[in-house]
Order: sequence, then C-alpha cells, then structure tokens
Amino acid sequence: MEKMQKTGSFELLKEDRHTGARLGRLHLAHGVVDTPVFMPVGTQASVKALEPRDLTELGASIILGNTYHLLLRPGTEIIESLGGLHKFMSWDRPILTDSGGFQVFSLNNLNKIHEHGVEFSSHIDGARLFLGPREAMAVQRALGSDIAMVFDECMPYPCTEDYAVRSVRKTLKWAAECFEQPRAESQLFFGIVQGGEFSALREMCARELTAIGFDGYAVGGVSVGEPEDVMIRGVEDGLRFLPIEKPRYVMGLGDMYQMTESVARGADMFDCVIPTRVARHGTAYTRRGAYPVKGAAYKLDERPVEEGCTCYCCRNFSRAYIRHLLNVREISGVRLLTIHNMHRYLEFMREMREAIANDCFNEWRKECAAILRPNGLKSRAGES
Amino acid sequence: MEKMQKTGSFELLKEDRHTGARLGRLHLAHGVVDTPVFMPVGTQASVKALEPRDLTELGASIILGNTYHLLLRPGTEIIESLGGLHKFMSWDRPILTDSGGFQVFSLNNLNKIHEHGVEFSSHIDGARLFLGPREAMAVQRALGSDIAMVFDECMPYPCTEDYAVRSVRKTLKWAAECFEQPRAESQLFFGIVQGGEFSALREMCARELTAIGFDGYAVGGVSVGEPEDVMIRGVEDGLRFLPIEKPRYVMGLGDMYQMTESVARGADMFDCVIPTRVARHGTAYTRRGAYPVKGAAYKLDERPVEEGCTCYCCRNFSRAYIRHLLNVREISGVRLLTIHNMHRYLEFMREMREAIANDCFNEWRKECAAILRPNGLKSRAGES
Repeated sequence: MEKMQKTGSFELLKEDRHTGARLGRLHLAHGVVDTPVFMPVGTQASVKALEPRDLTELGASIILGNTYHLLLRPGTEIIESLGGLHKFMSWDRPILTDSGGFQVFSLNNLNKIHEHGVEFSSHIDGARLFLGPREAMAVQRALGSDIAMVFDECMPYPCTEDYAVRSVRKTLKWAAECFEQPRAESQLFFGIVQGGEFSALREMCARELTAIGFDGYAVGGVSVGEPEDVMIRGVEDGLRFLPIEKPRYVMGLGDMYQMTESVARGADMFDCVIPTRVARHGTAYTRRGAYPVKGAAYKLDERPVEEGCTCYCCRNFSRAYIRHLLNVREISGVRLLTIHNMHRYLEFMREMREAIANDCFNEWRKECAAILRPNGLKSRAGES
Repeated sequence: MEKMQKTGSFELLKEDRHTGARLGRLHLAHGVVDTPVFMPVGTQASVKALEPRDLTELGASIILGNTYHLLLRPGTEIIESLGGLHKFMSWDRPILTDSGGFQVFSLNNLNKIHEHGVEFSSHIDGARLFLGPREAMAVQRALGSDIAMVFDECMPYPCTEDYAVRSVRKTLKWAAECFEQPRAESQLFFGIVQGGEFSALREMCARELTAIGFDGYAVGGVSVGEPEDVMIRGVEDGLRFLPIEKPRYVMGLGDMYQMTESVARGADMFDCVIPTRVARHGTAYTRRGAYPVKGAAYKLDERPVEEGCTCYCCRNFSRAYIRHLLNVREISGVRLLTIHNMHRYLEFMREMREAIANDCFNEWRKECAAILRPNGLKSRAGES
C-alpha cells in the first residue's frame, strides 16, 4: 500500500509493505524534516559539546530543547528578550520543545501535584516553582519552538493500575487545558499518550487525544526503567490507535534497536541523550556495536574510531589519539567522540529511511537486531 | 636600517627604525612562520578545547608541544610508533617542542639534580623518572618537532647569585651535551639563555651559547613570579647579546603588554597558556582589555563577546548566550570563548607585524600600553 498523503504539515510519503514503518516529511516553520528522524538533545540551549555548525555538517534536521532546564537557566524572559531559542543559540533549523513534565516528575522527589500543575523544587537552588498546562505552554510560546508538547504527568514504573488510571485522566485534562492556550506563530502542537504498561489505558488515552485533534502525537512514559519487552509493548500500545496521517514521536527513546522496533510499529521521531552522553564516558558507537575507546587495547591503534566512517573525527584521528585525549581529560576528546557518535546516529537514521524507501526495511531491521541484540532483549531498559 | 637577510632557515625581513622590533620569516620542515609569532600551547598533544581545523581557521602557523607531558602520557614510544607528533595529533604545520626542563623543575619539589640530568616524580602517579640532555633530545627526536629546545635548568625566583652562577654553568654544560645528540630530519635546535635577574650572567650565557652556534635562541626563566620590571629587564638582558640573524624566542611569556615590550627589545617568538586558560575561567580578551563574560551585567547583552570581531564565536553568538553556556558549564561555552581569545591573540600578532611593516610599531606599542597598563607596570608577574 504505497500512497502519497499530505495532511497539514506532515506528508506521509510511504508505508512499508511488511511492517508499520513509514517514510514521512514534516514541514515546519524553520525547515523540512525527513522521518524517521533522530533529534539530538540540546538540554540547556546547547547539544552537549557540539556547535550549530557541527550539527549542520552532521546533517541534523531538528533538535530538542528542554523547557524545564531553560526555565531554570537562563530563564524564559532572557531567551524571549533575546529573540527566542533559535536566535539565542544560533540554530536556524527546527526545534521541538518538551513541556517540562518529565523533568518535574523525574528530577523532583519533593513535587506536589495540584489540579492545574505541579509545585516543585529547582534542582539547582531548591527554589519552589510551579509548572502546569498554562505555564508550560507560555514557556514554549516564548521559546518559539517549531513543535510544542503538552504538559503531561509521567507516571513512575512500576505503578498500580489505579494510580495509572488517575494519572492518565490528569494528563488528558491537562492536554485539553494546554490546547486552549495560545501558541507561537506556526508552532505545531503534539499530544502525549500515557498509560504505562496498561494497554487499555494507552488506547483510551490515544483515542481521547485524537478526539481533541493535535498536529502530532507522542508516546510518553517509556524507557523509564521497565524491561525491554514491556517498553516495546508500551510503544506498540501507544502508537496503535493514533491517526496514520499525523507524525508520531516516541519520547526519550534512543537505543538503536528500540528505535528500529518502534519504527516497525509506526514511529516517526525520536530523541535521546545517549549519543552525546556515552561519548563523555568514552564509548563509541559503530556499525558493529559499541566499545570503550579508553581501553588499553587501543593505545597503539592507528585505525579511526570506526573504519570507513566519514565523520571529521574518523577522517583525521586515530583511536590511539582519541583514547589519549579521553584519558588525559582533554575537551577535544569528548568533542571528537561526540561528533562521531552523532554522525553514527544520524547515519543510522539515513540508512533506515533508505531501507524503507527501497522496500527492504524488514531485512535491514533483522540485520540490525543480529548486531544490536545478539543475546535477545535487555532485561531492563538501558541494561544489556 | 632596513635590510634583507637570510641565514639558514630564518629570514630577517626588516628591523624597526626606532626600537629593536624585527619582522622575520622562519622556514621550517612543516611550513613557513611569520614573526613576531604567538605559538598556542598544545600541552598534551591538543591545544585545549581547539581542534586542528580551528587552529588553521584562526591562522595559527606554529604550535608548541610539551616534552614532559607527552613523555608521561601517552608516552614517547606510542607517539613515535604512530608516526610522530604531527601525525598523532593531525597537525601538519610546524611544532616547537620544549625540553621538559621547566616542568621537571616547576612541577616537582622532589626532584634531584644529577650531573647528567634530573631525577623527578611523575605528577600523575609519582613514578620516579629521569630526564637529562640525552633523554630530552631523544624524546624531541622521536616526536619529530620542527624546533627542539635544549634541556636547561630553570632556576627559581628569587635565588642567590651564587646559586644562579652554578645553575647557568649547568645549563651551558647541558646545552653542549644536547648539541652532541642526533636530531630528527630538518629539526632546528635552539639554545636557552638563563641567568635570572643577573645581567652579567645573562650576557655570559648568551655569549657561550652563541659560541656553540644554535639555529635560534630563547630567553628562559622569565615570568616565574618576578615583578614586571625585573622580568622585562631579564628579557632585555637575555636578548641583547644574541646574534641578530637568528630567531629569538621568549619562553612562556604571553601577556600582550609583555610581548610588545619584548618585541621592542628584539624578540620574535612567544608561547603561553593564557588565552586558552583564561577562557576556561570565563574571561574574554578584547581590544579594549579583558572582562569576565560570566558577569550578571551581560545576561541580556545581545552584543558579541567583542564588537567588530570576525571570529566564529562573535559572528554567531551573543555575550548573553556565551555567559549562559559558561554558567551552566556547557563545553561549548569554553570552546567558543577559547576560539575568540585565540583569535584575539593571533590578530594582535598580525597587527604587530603590520605595525612593524608600516614603520609605526612604536606608536602602536604606545597605544597598546595605554590600554594594557593604564596604571603602570604590574607589581608581580601575572598580577595587575
């Protein structure tokens, strides 16, 4: 079933014959984004260790900004008075902002949930702050992102079904409240499907959000510590009842295997701190898997971090040199490895799109799985 | 007295009419260096926070590598087996290496001076090591630098004249021993004038080194904690009796005012960690002086770090953004400010060369002094 659909700002270019994978194109205020897409995370108005020119050179088409972190530092008013997030960080391609909901729940054990939002303590100085549908939308409006997200409750894993039901009700109520708020010019607005591991809740949430009618939909509350099979079922449950003509974003998920499985179930967008974070810990991603570049085995290794790779790091430096820089804690070590890892990630997505375009996604997916999960699924998210 | 001299690898292109300033050109194995020149310091085979492509874009024509640090990590054998320092760090322009003498004396309070070198403890793991004329030359040969330095004793400040006399004798003996050692292909070799604050000793040292006949000469043992007037006199004493047709390098000195005064006394080359180090502390250099970018005064400042500056940082980002990055400890903050500071330094040297070429060095020098030392000399090196 190949077809050409264009609904608003999302073109569904192709649907895979054998899986739920799709090829799409998002038309946003600051540019065009081919999907499936990986969005590098620019938490504090900076993708860690990378500059805008690096991201452009690497081919990043959209990045993510964190409402919670930007609200705390430098503060919304500062970014707004300096012309918005794009101008502030000198990035002229699209930006998606989250709503701060995830951080308010995950970084705060002193938060207090009220009817219209959450009272929480700043993780910087402990100051008491409040974030709810109204506030989260105001911040995202001020930041001027291309895509804003609803303010939701991210429930913990595990939690009781009773808690989950009440939590999803709150998420839906807040979604409706967010929907009433004004938005920045041309800003798209995505709803978030919650429901934890409870399939019926995921379905209910997806159906009610669709009834409100967002520009796109996300699956939230995955990759929060649950086993991998539970996570993948959560993604599947979250995606199943969403309208096919809208973009679908799986939040915070960036493991290559998990992204592939999510795309096979109809996901279009991802974000994750993995490629930048593991670079800071000295781990390199390659086509054949990940490895620690700091290892003594590489001290005389003249090969690039990944043979055949075309990134700036691999074109110019040896594994032995990168290992040395990491071991003596030179900033350039982290930077060069971040460049490589981000290149690998964005290449991986380009290969994925190509596989869908060439009707061989399922074969490609199996090849990836053989490398990425030689011993089956992970027992817990983030653990192998 | 304008003239054109070429002796070996150094062309003396011009001598200033009113001061000792000179315009020169060094022809080295890996390229041409216009003097006066500032050499960014690549201590651990990396100029901190900068990549080779940054240095090329900034117009750095030569950098410095530290024998002591490279000897400890990753170790000479590793760099040698990977094809030498240029290949290891992917830098194809000239490199000058120091001999490790300065670090062996300044980073070690447990060193023990023997007839043929110094026994010292690694500042990393305390391992007992030995560095002398033979070893220092072997390391620099293995690194394959364009210019190697003699292994000298860097005497402390203050010290007695008696100690200074014995120290200079040792430096001269070691210089002669170094001179007997083999060198890398096309590697130039510079002697180092020591003598502390004792003019007669500086003269004696310069004359004896000249009699040995090096490719160039350096003034060492300045900027080690002495008052600025003592330092400048030390530079003057060190330079005065050196042959005019050879390049002259003032080691470890990189304060802009002090470089200008040294050039006025005939210096051609400088190195210093200042531009990279102060960037890590959040200080920006500008034409009008230095200032802390982290200051609250800049939180809404849309101007670049330095107005009119053409570096990547100033072309793309505001003071408010750089301040934010520094305050939230993003790597990009340090990097962008390092790029700016290095640009300012290399611009400063370009302006200096232009002033000499246009016969207005002395006027330029006075304008600089009015900005850099509005209240006269510093009481101690490094303090204003």
